[in-house]
Formats: sequence, C-alpha cells, structure tokens
Amino acid sequence: MDGRIDGRKLAKQLSLKTKENVASLRNIGVVPTLVEILVGNDPASRMYLNLKHRKAGRLGIKSIVKRLPADTTQDQLLNLVQQCNLNDDIDGIVVQSPLPKHINERVINAAINPGKDVDGVNPLNEGQLFEGSQSNYPVGCTPKGIMTMLHHYHVPLRGRRVVVIGRSRIVGRPMTSLLINAGALVTDLNHYAKPIRDFTKQADVIISATGHINLLNGDDVKPGVTVIDVGENMNANGKLVGDVNFKSVAKVAGLITPVPGGVGPMTVATLMQQVVDLTEWSRNDD
Amino acid sequence: MDGRIDGRKLAKQLSLKTKENVASLRNIGVVPTLVEILVGNDPASRMYLNLKHRKAGRLGIKSIVKRLPADTTQDQLLNLVQQCNLNDDIDGIVVQSPLPKHINERVINAAINPGKDVDGVNPLNEGQLFEGSQSNYPVGCTPKGIMTMLHHYHVPLRGRRVVVIGRSRIVGRPMTSLLINAGALVTDLNHYAKPIRDFTKQADVIISATGHINLLNGDDVKPGVTVIDVGENMNANGKLVGDVNFKSVAKVAGLITPVPGGVGPMTVATLMQQVVDLTEWSRNDD
Repeated sequence: MDGRIDGRKLAKQLSLKTKENVASLRNIGVVPTLVEILVGNDPASRMYLNLKHRKAGRLGIKSIVKRLPADTTQDQLLNLVQQCNLNDDIDGIVVQSPLPKHINERVINAAINPGKDVDGVNPLNEGQLFEGSQSNYPVGCTPKGIMTMLHHYHVPLRGRRVVVIGRSRIVGRPMTSLLINAGALVTDLNHYAKPIRDFTKQADVIISATGHINLLNGDDVKPGVTVIDVGENMNANGKLVGDVNFKSVAKVAGLITPVPGGVGPMTVATLMQQVVDLTEWSRNDD
Repeated sequence: MDGRIDGRKLAKQLSLKTKENVASLRNIGVVPTLVEILVGNDPASRMYLNLKHRKAGRLGIKSIVKRLPADTTQDQLLNLVQQCNLNDDIDGIVVQSPLPKHINERVINAAINPGKDVDGVNPLNEGQLFEGSQSNYPVGCTPKGIMTMLHHYHVPLRGRRVVVIGRSRIVGRPMTSLLINAGALVTDLNHYAKPIRDFTKQADVIISATGHINLLNGDDVKPGVTVIDVGENMNANGKLVGDVNFKSVAKVAGLITPVPGGVGPMTVATLMQQVVDLTEWSRNDD
C-alpha cells in the first residue's frame, strides 16, 4: 500500500474551507486582514512571505506586507506592532522570524496582541497551550497543521508512544503540548539521545524537526509507524529533503509525509485558517 | 547505602538562606510581603495555608491571610486580586486552590500580576517556562523544589531518560518543561500507559505525581534509578504515603524521596524563597 500522507491534497481541502469562511465573513462586511512584518532582507524569509501573501490573496484574505530596513530599532518595530494591535481592521499579525540580532524576538512576540497572534508565539497563548486550556487561542501553525493531518488520517494518539525530535519554540515544544493534551505518551528527544534508534524503534508516531538529513532510516523505526517529517533541508544535489531517509523509511512505515508536499503546505493552509479563526473569535468577544 | 533524599534537611538549608535574604531586605527597609487568599473552608487548604503562614513568619516574611466566604463571587475575588496587584507593598499573591466550583480558576490565575505570581500559574509565566526563557519568572514551587533537590544530589539530567507520571497543571506539566529545558529526554505518562513498567524500567529518573498508592514497586524500576515521589495519599491505616511502595523501591533505587519528608518540605521552602525572589526582581525593575 502507499502510505504517503498527501499534505498538498489536505492543504487544498483546508484552504477550500477557509475560502468559504472568508466569503461568509465578507458577505457581512468583514474582511479578514493579515499584516506580515519583515525586517531586513533574508532571502528565505522574503520567499516565504511572498508565498503567504499570494496564498492569502487567493483565499480572499487581505494581506498587508510591511517591509522595514535591517537597521530598524527594536523600539521602532515595537511601535509598529503596537499600531497593528490597536488597529481594529487588523485581525492577524505575523512578525517574520528570524529578526536581526539587535532585536530581541521574545520582547517582540510578547508585545503582539494575543488575540492577533497568528503564529501563537505570545507567551500568554503558549501558556494556554501548556495548560491544555479548552478556550480559543492560536497555536503554532506547523504543529497545529500536523495535528490536523494525524486526525485526518485517523492516527490514534491516546495512550500511544509518540517521539518528538527537536525542542524548538515553534515546532517541538508546542507539538509536545498538543500531543500531551491529546493523551499521547510523548517523549522529547534532543541531540543527547544516542543512539536515537533506542527511542524511535519503540514509537507509534515519530515527529522529526531537526534539520539533519538522513537522521532516520528504515531500521530505526517500527513497522507500521507514522512518520511526520518537518525537516526542510537542502541536500548535496541542491534538492529539498526532510530529516528522514524517505525511501528507506517508507518501506517500513504505515504512514509518512514526503518532503516537499507533506508538512509544508499544511503549515501555510493552517496559518490562513488561523487568521480567519482570530477574526471570528474577536468578533464573538465584542 | 542509604539512598534516601532528605527533603527536610535540604528545605532547612534553603530556608536559612531565605531568612538571610529577608534580613538583608529588611535592613534596607523592604519587607517581603505575601498575601494568601482562601475562599471557603476546605480543611486541607486551611491546614496548608496555616503551615505557610507560620513558616513565612519564622523567616521574617510578612504574611497576610485573606479569608473569604464560600459564596464569594468570581467578580469579588477578581476585585481583591486586582487590589493586591496594585498595592506596591505586596510582593506575592497566592490564591489557594481548589476554588469553589462557581469560580473559574483559570480566569483568576490569569488575573494575578505575573510579577507577583508566587505559584507560577499565570499563563504568561507558564509561557516563559514553556519557551525555556532565561529571564526571571516564577515557576510552580513543587517542580522548582524538585529541580533543587536533583541538583543538590548531583543527579545528571542532560541526555538522561526521565519519566514524568501525571500531567497536572501545577506539577506534571511544569516539571516536564523544566526537565526539557535541562536537556533531559522526558517522557510524559498518563493512565493510558499500560503496563507502566514498560516505561519506568528504562528510566534514569522517575517523577511520580498521580495520587495512586503502590503505583510502582521495586521490579518496576531500574537499579540505581532516582525516584521523586510527589504523591501525598492517605493509606487504609490513615497514614500519609506516596505513590510508590517505598520499602520495595528503596531496595533498588539509587536515590528516593520519602513521604513525608521528601518533596513536601521543599515545596514550602521554595515558595518562601520565591516570594523573596519576586521582591528582589520587582525592585530591580524599578
């Protein structure tokens, strides 16, 4: 059987739903509006931002891109964030990461209005996730998109062994919280976990977000395992590949995400849906 | 060898240091002040609150207990919290849990000034912990006290397998974050983990916070393991016991906390130290 998880197809379905939600909102005069702030000229950030800008446009979301020079001060950036916080026409704010080194990303993230925090990076939203709160709050789009995928493919989580490799603030940590909240038995691994096979061989689900090519091969995993590969790495031939050796692992896994075409499209589609969610939540609060 | 972790002795050492810190602050005219709010008449809460009140007094911390009737409304409680937030003479606020059912604990916790949040229950502080932030912020006193114990007894954490049983908001979850931040390979277990031995047998460190008597016996753990027992359960003979079968596990473990005399005293001592920390941090912010 082909155990490939089709992230593109699922992202299209999600986007279709988002487009309908946007249309309903526009029908009552509400235009979901996203502001993305880019400081400096990081090429990858620019590419990603353009992708999101076009995607938003196709779904009917108003997308505003604010480009600031690399020497923007932290206070100037804080001022802009504050303006966006106070502007009722703006529903979602993204400050594109990474920021120049002279700006403290934590300070900026904490300044974003929690109700407009599309990336779920404000500590207040992180705290809600940490608590397993049942209220409405935004969550990092990559881990949220992965939960949608696991749910769509009926991957059981409650009482299952899940290994999360990588403990970054935007993927590993929120992923772990979402999985704990779903009743999974989650193990967080970092680069001290050696040999990693000792851990991954026991897992029913593996989420890898490390940036290391060929981290896992077929003999590192259990037959039937679900593997979600968050890695986006450039190999020696200039090809985009994930963390796991896809060919080798796919032979053993029950389900596996390809790179590209797995997690990536779901992240963008989830971000757009979350802009719409924020728009609706703020309206319900009024 | 006797692998018993002496929580009482360590708590005394910590309290001695706290007492000195309080004296230094009082010398410059600063009186660390803790307000504890009790709603209703839960007997266990009253006992615990009295214990903290006496302890604070012995260390020179000014302790104010506010007792409210069980039918206090959520708004009335919020008003009192707000008064304490705004009162510059108050350094720490504890709203004793559990609250009556008609009051939403999350709403109250979120209302506590994050800079006065002794129990580390405000989502903003939880978010800082979740992120692994290096700044100053309060953390739940039980998990923080456990980290102090592990550190004092030179228990290595980086790259070690740690199992946390229980995922409560005040013990399991913050414990997991602290351990992840320390580089441990943490597995969170819940009651779906069966048989639990499959997980605990592999662990270098086990933290149990479940409220189940005799959850672990000697043959459930690895020789040399460190066992931290957060349970406080009443057994059939009316005796206070932990989650683990102490006699049986102590024969196999390298280090183990007794109940009573293990985690409990460290929680109270850590709480007092955290009141002093909050006092100092707020002064440095001025």
